[in-house]
Amino acid sequence: MSELADPLPRLLVIGGGFAGLWATRALARAPLRITLLDRSNHHLFQPLLYQVATAGLSAPDIAAPLRHILRRQRNVEVRLGEATAIDAAGRQVALADGSTLGFDYLLLASGATHAYFGHDDWAAHAPGLKSLDDALHLRRRLLLAFERAEACDDPAERTAWLNFAIVGGGPTGVELAGTLAEIARHTLKREFRRIDPASARVRLIEAGPRVLPSFPEVLSERARRQLQRLGVEVSTGVPVTAIDAGGYRLGEEYVPARTVVWAAGVAASPLARSLGVPLDRAGRVPVEADLSVPGHPHVFVAGDLAAVKRADGSAVPGVAPAAKQMGRHVAATIRARLRGEQADAFRYRDFGNLATIGRMAAVVDLHGVRLSGLPAWWFWLAAHVFFLIGFRNRLVVLLNWAWAYWSYQRAARIILGRDAQDPAPE
Amino acid sequence: MSELADPLPRLLVIGGGFAGLWATRALARAPLRITLLDRSNHHLFQPLLYQVATAGLSAPDIAAPLRHILRRQRNVEVRLGEATAIDAAGRQVALADGSTLGFDYLLLASGATHAYFGHDDWAAHAPGLKSLDDALHLRRRLLLAFERAEACDDPAERTAWLNFAIVGGGPTGVELAGTLAEIARHTLKREFRRIDPASARVRLIEAGPRVLPSFPEVLSERARRQLQRLGVEVSTGVPVTAIDAGGYRLGEEYVPARTVVWAAGVAASPLARSLGVPLDRAGRVPVEADLSVPGHPHVFVAGDLAAVKRADGSAVPGVAPAAKQMGRHVAATIRARLRGEQADAFRYRDFGNLATIGRMAAVVDLHGVRLSGLPAWWFWLAAHVFFLIGFRNRLVVLLNWAWAYWSYQRAARIILGRDAQDPAPE
Repeated sequence: MSELADPLPRLLVIGGGFAGLWATRALARAPLRITLLDRSNHHLFQPLLYQVATAGLSAPDIAAPLRHILRRQRNVEVRLGEATAIDAAGRQVALADGSTLGFDYLLLASGATHAYFGHDDWAAHAPGLKSLDDALHLRRRLLLAFERAEACDDPAERTAWLNFAIVGGGPTGVELAGTLAEIARHTLKREFRRIDPASARVRLIEAGPRVLPSFPEVLSERARRQLQRLGVEVSTGVPVTAIDAGGYRLGEEYVPARTVVWAAGVAASPLARSLGVPLDRAGRVPVEADLSVPGHPHVFVAGDLAAVKRADGSAVPGVAPAAKQMGRHVAATIRARLRGEQADAFRYRDFGNLATIGRMAAVVDLHGVRLSGLPAWWFWLAAHVFFLIGFRNRLVVLLNWAWAYWSYQRAARIILGRDAQDPAPE
Repeated sequence: MSELADPLPRLLVIGGGFAGLWATRALARAPLRITLLDRSNHHLFQPLLYQVATAGLSAPDIAAPLRHILRRQRNVEVRLGEATAIDAAGRQVALADGSTLGFDYLLLASGATHAYFGHDDWAAHAPGLKSLDDALHLRRRLLLAFERAEACDDPAERTAWLNFAIVGGGPTGVELAGTLAEIARHTLKREFRRIDPASARVRLIEAGPRVLPSFPEVLSERARRQLQRLGVEVSTGVPVTAIDAGGYRLGEEYVPARTVVWAAGVAASPLARSLGVPLDRAGRVPVEADLSVPGHPHVFVAGDLAAVKRADGSAVPGVAPAAKQMGRHVAATIRARLRGEQADAFRYRDFGNLATIGRMAAVVDLHGVRLSGLPAWWFWLAAHVFFLIGFRNRLVVLLNWAWAYWSYQRAARIILGRDAQDPAPE
């Protein structure tokens, strides 16, 4: 195409998560041709992913098609596909299907994935939770474990099926452990004839000294007590040293367990490596003050993939509000550049930190105001309902939620997958 | 176990569909030890399966865990597993996991599966719709076809991706074709930049002379006109003679099409063969008047797997009301036998026949009263809402429905499956 016929600069956004989608929407009126590339066809409300994994919500409740969200924004084209390599100097990206996409500006916002700290063989035995497919896989594993225990005649094997371990005491691990304990103690009550689901052992394992390490110590302690009240066994200070098909090793102790969930580590998407700049230890890209890549002012990184320092030297956390702020900042920078103006440096506005633990239990840290228990839970619910606005499913989600919390029932306890009756889901 | 300690006769029910579940529930107070065996953990409201395939509802909306439905019925044990062979004389059933289950009474209600009339190689190219996994697979195929068309530069290939064929003009085929035409013409409007989804060709193919052959001719004709108004091309009287990865052959014409859906034939579950009695051409079991298997009065067959004749010689159709009636009849027969009484012969009460076509279009045949268009659609909706009662999801389902119909939007347009970005889903 000639420059005369199509003179608008091209912006390629890789990833339709919070960073990529918020940047794209903030550029609705900018003179750009935007392509939004994602491996899946939907934007995911990641903070509720654990609810899909624990059968409280169904997959479409927390996802919306990117095409649908952006249907009225005429300067955007949504493309389903996977980027495999970035040529920052040559300004093009290679796709898995063999094609390439050129760009004038690039926003890399492809997020993070699980990291097993060099133990990649653990991945098969301890699945993580980053995508809807992960959540459905985990749901299948959790529900099938109780089925296997019920069908099984050997007491040792039965115990192994009823042993659940969640590795990692951050918000995802805490949410999963609390909810799983509720399922075992309340949701499945009376449904089995040979086993007592309440006898399931749900263990949350954190190698560091306390759960929720990003929260103040007093809230970590309250979270631990709330978890224990829900029936979760909280193990801190000892690392998991092995995971295999039969169980896991914690310090010196080997525990037979058929269900281990990985909530311990995230690593940046491997795409960052092809940028050819130094990455930090988690594989993230240390960016300039305007979120551009050193040496490539037309290439930006935002969201979990960006390593950004605050004024006090601490890292901006990998949470949804930070990703949205970065996305909007990149949009503002590009708009300024298009006008030939100077862009500001990115500044993270930290509104606080919240984590839910289970039915009517949560912790909230608003930098000064600290809540736990029921008030924190109400705050968490209100915040999430507020942020779900824009998702058309919010009413359905709320109804499912209300039902799940007040009745202890969970709407989505459906085992999917053609191999549902396999003897073991490893 | 000694007979003294546990003297109650054992009933094994294979299949938790309408026939098996209704029989089980009707025996809540019978002196029996019941085991309900199913390959999946849920009962499925099959009449709405096409809504999951066409992204109007999510999988958990139309399914409920069998354990949950039966949690208060203390004489039932639910078992997740797959029966592989029946020894009717020896009174035991072999399971895929190597174990066996004994019985005193057996109800075989494992339903039907797709049949490709001897063309098993078509199965890979023309998936059918019987389970939730089938529905999610089909949803993925339908949504990905539009994505492929958008990403594709070759006009011929693009046309092939936008060519949809549904083989089989029964109720499932009609529902799928009507809904798919709506998706192409309304739901996806404005969401693509390179293709016009409304240009998709949705063809419904019926080898016989008319669609909905089980309805009166006048309703078949009205259904055809309603389909055509929705944009469906209806082809009758010519059979599909080949299906491969590139398209299908209709009579002499080869049509390049990447998405062919099979709604043409069902065959009984292969488990029936192990009964050792003669089966009919569709693999169903011709049963005695009390629905027992000839020569095996303690073995019953109900639902789609049973070949039952009405007084006028016509076959009882493979629909949900018939399956429920058979299930309840088997329950009554077993109760009578336990009391040493004689059981009545099964009589099918035919309340009518209904099929939905699309948004506010349906046909209803109440044997005397015939409806079509909007009145039929309201009748269909009311009937399905009524029969969903007992499913706790009915409010959510209704909301999703109402939203889908009035806005043309579909809540569940989420492509799941780890291979979402594969170049071709064959």
